[in-house]
Amino acid sequence: MIDYQGILNNIYQTVILEKDKGEIATYIPELANVDKNAFGIHLHLISGETFSVGDSEKKFSIQSISKVLSLALAMSKVGSDIWNRLDVEPSGNPFNHLSLLELEEGIPRNPLINSGAIVIADVLVSVLDNPKEDFLNFVRDLTGDSSIDYDLKVAYSEKITGYRNYAAANLLKSFNNLENEVDDVLDFYFHQCSLNMTCAQLTKAFFVFANKGKCLLEKTRLTKSQAKRISAIMLTCGFYDEAGEFAFEVGLPGKSGVGGGIVALLPNEFVISVWAPGLNERGNSKLGMQALEQFTTETNQSIF
Amino acid sequence: MIDYQGILNNIYQTVILEKDKGEIATYIPELANVDKNAFGIHLHLISGETFSVGDSEKKFSIQSISKVLSLALAMSKVGSDIWNRLDVEPSGNPFNHLSLLELEEGIPRNPLINSGAIVIADVLVSVLDNPKEDFLNFVRDLTGDSSIDYDLKVAYSEKITGYRNYAAANLLKSFNNLENEVDDVLDFYFHQCSLNMTCAQLTKAFFVFANKGKCLLEKTRLTKSQAKRISAIMLTCGFYDEAGEFAFEVGLPGKSGVGGGIVALLPNEFVISVWAPGLNERGNSKLGMQALEQFTTETNQSIF
Amino acid sequence: MIDYQGILNNIYQTVILEKDKGEIATYIPELANVDKNAFGIHLHLISGETFSVGDSEKKFSIQSISKVLSLALAMSKVGSDIWNRLDVEPSGNPFNHLSLLELEEGIPRNPLINSGAIVIADVLVSVLDNPKEDFLNFVRDLTGDSSIDYDLKVAYSEKITGYRNYAAANLLKSFNNLENEVDDVLDFYFHQCSLNMTCAQLTKAFFVFANKGKCLLEKTRLTKSQAKRISAIMLTCGFYDEAGEFAFEVGLPGKSGVGGGIVALLPNEFVISVWAPGLNERGNSKLGMQALEQFTTETNQSIF
Amino acid sequence: MIDYQGILNNIYQTVILEKDKGEIATYIPELANVDKNAFGIHLHLISGETFSVGDSEKKFSIQSISKVLSLALAMSKVGSDIWNRLDVEPSGNPFNHLSLLELEEGIPRNPLINSGAIVIADVLVSVLDNPKEDFLNFVRDLTGDSSIDYDLKVAYSEKITGYRNYAAANLLKSFNNLENEVDDVLDFYFHQCSLNMTCAQLTKAFFVFANKGKCLLEKTRLTKSQAKRISAIMLTCGFYDEAGEFAFEVGLPGKSGVGGGIVALLPNEFVISVWAPGLNERGNSKLGMQALEQFTTETNQSIF
Repeated sequence: MIDYQGILNNIYQTVILEKDKGEIATYIPELANVDKNAFGIHLHLISGETFSVGDSEKKFSIQSISKVLSLALAMSKVGSDIWNRLDVEPSGNPFNHLSLLELEEGIPRNPLINSGAIVIADVLVSVLDNPKEDFLNFVRDLTGDSSIDYDLKVAYSEKITGYRNYAAANLLKSFNNLENEVDDVLDFYFHQCSLNMTCAQLTKAFFVFANKGKCLLEKTRLTKSQAKRISAIMLTCGFYDEAGEFAFEVGLPGKSGVGGGIVALLPNEFVISVWAPGLNERGNSKLGMQALEQFTTETNQSIF
Repeated sequence: MIDYQGILNNIYQTVILEKDKGEIATYIPELANVDKNAFGIHLHLISGETFSVGDSEKKFSIQSISKVLSLALAMSKVGSDIWNRLDVEPSGNPFNHLSLLELEEGIPRNPLINSGAIVIADVLVSVLDNPKEDFLNFVRDLTGDSSIDYDLKVAYSEKITGYRNYAAANLLKSFNNLENEVDDVLDFYFHQCSLNMTCAQLTKAFFVFANKGKCLLEKTRLTKSQAKRISAIMLTCGFYDEAGEFAFEVGLPGKSGVGGGIVALLPNEFVISVWAPGLNERGNSKLGMQALEQFTTETNQSIF
Repeated sequence: MIDYQGILNNIYQTVILEKDKGEIATYIPELANVDKNAFGIHLHLISGETFSVGDSEKKFSIQSISKVLSLALAMSKVGSDIWNRLDVEPSGNPFNHLSLLELEEGIPRNPLINSGAIVIADVLVSVLDNPKEDFLNFVRDLTGDSSIDYDLKVAYSEKITGYRNYAAANLLKSFNNLENEVDDVLDFYFHQCSLNMTCAQLTKAFFVFANKGKCLLEKTRLTKSQAKRISAIMLTCGFYDEAGEFAFEVGLPGKSGVGGGIVALLPNEFVISVWAPGLNERGNSKLGMQALEQFTTETNQSIF
Repeated sequence: MIDYQGILNNIYQTVILEKDKGEIATYIPELANVDKNAFGIHLHLISGETFSVGDSEKKFSIQSISKVLSLALAMSKVGSDIWNRLDVEPSGNPFNHLSLLELEEGIPRNPLINSGAIVIADVLVSVLDNPKEDFLNFVRDLTGDSSIDYDLKVAYSEKITGYRNYAAANLLKSFNNLENEVDDVLDFYFHQCSLNMTCAQLTKAFFVFANKGKCLLEKTRLTKSQAKRISAIMLTCGFYDEAGEFAFEVGLPGKSGVGGGIVALLPNEFVISVWAPGLNERGNSKLGMQALEQFTTETNQSIF
């Protein structure tokens, strides 16, 4: 028997002593006000038990973590046709680079970089009746928690400063890889990224990927194969140009966001969410990465 | 004495027999309707004489040729400060690539690629009271011809399809290299590119660069040094990724546009404009390039 | 209980009917003579059982698969210091591109692309007394099979045609990321790649990675952590620019070679080797990829 | 009448007061010993008059300036066929980058970057009976000066440290754009670059380009068209990624070398050579660039 609570406590003790907590993302003004000392973990075993430490019930902006959820919704709606419009290869480049997109003629490397997530947003804008509402309901349904909501200030903040994303969307459009209008797609995208969730809620939302496609309430939301494939994409592409490092050091599929959140999972075993708002120089939560490395070392659990 | 008219006639005879006239640019819908057989040349000696052949008095969309005129206006208004925001090096890349812009952190390679011309447009939007009106007046003043005007349909056509330019402008904005709003800058830029001019009018407009900064009416519009430097930029950067080829084959500073126009000049000697709407695979007028090559071969005049 | 033999038989039946068997690599002249119809699989469970089908006992050139073995030897000798000289990130580029190496100033993206493997070869040339002999003994020891040997004709064939590898090694040298002489490092590297092994021998050699660092004979050759990390690198970097695709479709750590071999493994469960010499357009065994996809689908076993 | 001697004297007075003389190139050990305070200019009018100041009769390593001479010899021997193997476009990249070469599949951007000059060296190794001897004789013949010679120490120094050039040559070979063996081509290339010449000798050697193909002794060595085209290539490609800057500031075709030399010319008017061994951060002679800028400003002579 692994003493999960003891391990989470250990991690917490280590982390609060860490002097260099990384840097808060400031490019989205609304995110710059977060407390750098915030730190929480929530662990949810597939068997049902949960463990937590610190600020595991505080809400934060999930940002890029939402890309996995929108991908899941798109795959469940459209199936494998989405792979005609984007690839599943790691990008080997910082997350917002357009060069590769241009070189590869408008085909994003994978759905977890910005350009790829914008294509997925375009898919959802096309197939959903009320994209923003329907996506929100999808997340609420996965978690069984109707209190989850967008942070409209954050969405607006991104809208008026998100020049890189406008550049990416316009470039996609120039390559005919965007069906809808740039403004409509990005409006959805900025809302999607603005979701406010706690560590506890995130573990619930990602339960479906660790549980063969069945969500927490045992309803099937994805096929077994889809759940497996989304996990594979997280492993190879979930951490910008630090994906290899995360696989190397931690050894779990996962996804990070500039809000400082990370979700990771061991299929058929557990989902774990960490939140620590300070980022390392590659844009991933510094203490979050460290906490997950300690977690897999102490539990001796990883996919490898 | 060079028999200029005889040489123009020769060129015309050669060109009308050419079977492969290149391809009309279709990415701007309004330009797609131009007659592929159109062909005109206008030659204006600094001494005052003029010669012409073919459709030299027919208007066409000058497109990128306008970048030289907006650069001239910006240099005359702002001086060398503009070089803090862009460089003067050849790009070595097709004209609409964003990769280099990203790699070099928002500093366009030169003012004659799209991203550089958008920065120049931003400069003009900042310093002119009524940018579109003032720029138009600048061109009318250079030529002494108040009939020159924007083609609003072409400007609108570019506005609703110019995703690449929106991508470039947003990328510039993300690097803080755009002072004004993307929409305002591009509105000006699309108008600037939509200028409708004849070969004869273009030679008049470019007289200032061949005549040490004095325009056709002998009014000083640029310093001698500015005229010389703009000519240098045309030589090294005026033909997208075919600049070296043009210098190699023709040996004159010049600028082409996707409307099929090319203006070239020999300082203190002449300005020559050619129009042939079919483009080669690098986006320059196919027969225009060929005509100018024949012209410098037969006249034995070039800067080298 | 999974009917492994039945599944291997199924795969074999499917594969022999496949009309498009891919293309034999011809850039190494000695490899061009291989029979395109060859096909074999060997499966070795951690529990000890083995299963096979087809040409599982025929020798072939393991080529890039050797990079995992040289990495293992280097890690066992030098420890984590090697990571000062190369990274663990997927390259997102075809396997022989030098551009990224130049852009990143001589630090290879990972040890499984050519430039990275050349750095590893340099490490081994520095630390081993008799590099070629010692590496061969390492592989013989892992497998308990002293019949394994280099194919000197293949090594020589690569030596006289391996201009890309000479380019990479010289570039590394120019960045001071090669301690030994280019010729010495490449002589070792070409020998390493020329190893001739059967599917059965490859599964034995890779047993150490699936078995927490203990080789087939239960001797500890790597730490548990090293075995896990090498598996992580295989997953993210083992298939050139098709790594994401392999993780997505197959879901196992593995490594391919241009000789048509692929080894893959499920930690604590099994190692499987496939050989089918025809390659797909990305340089991986076409039928080998397909066979492994069928294998994980039918056994329902993957790391995700 | 322009007071050339007075202008050269002025430049000298300005330059010797300059505190920041740039940095001596150290990557070729033999070059590192040069006196940073050396400075000389030699001016040779087409009319025959010559002017000089400072160390105009001291020998230095002409390095990349030799690329223009080898190009001239190759064009005179092979004609325009050489353009099947390389292009004439500016590279827009630092002089030793391989990325572009790889991207463009082994076709160098132009003959004045290293990879292009290596292709030209290959051409000469193929067509000359005794490449090193014949090239030396070509330069001696152009200048009428049989004292010009290679510096064998410098050639050897480059041979044992020129890893970048070995990388480029091997990459060219891998793309089948090198007919001869890498070692043979580079042996010639390193000798070619090691030529020791004075400013006075360089102006004589480059006389042929400014004088319509006739060398100092009025013997025709190039066609008029070849002389013109080589000048065009110098203008667009002669200064690595500072070619546009040189055209912009100076306005003359020219070529620089890491030994600190620069030759520039105004067709039908003059050839000028400057030597100042300290380089700017882009690898061109710092004071040499400055001297030539002052020269064209004070004489008011440029091609534009």
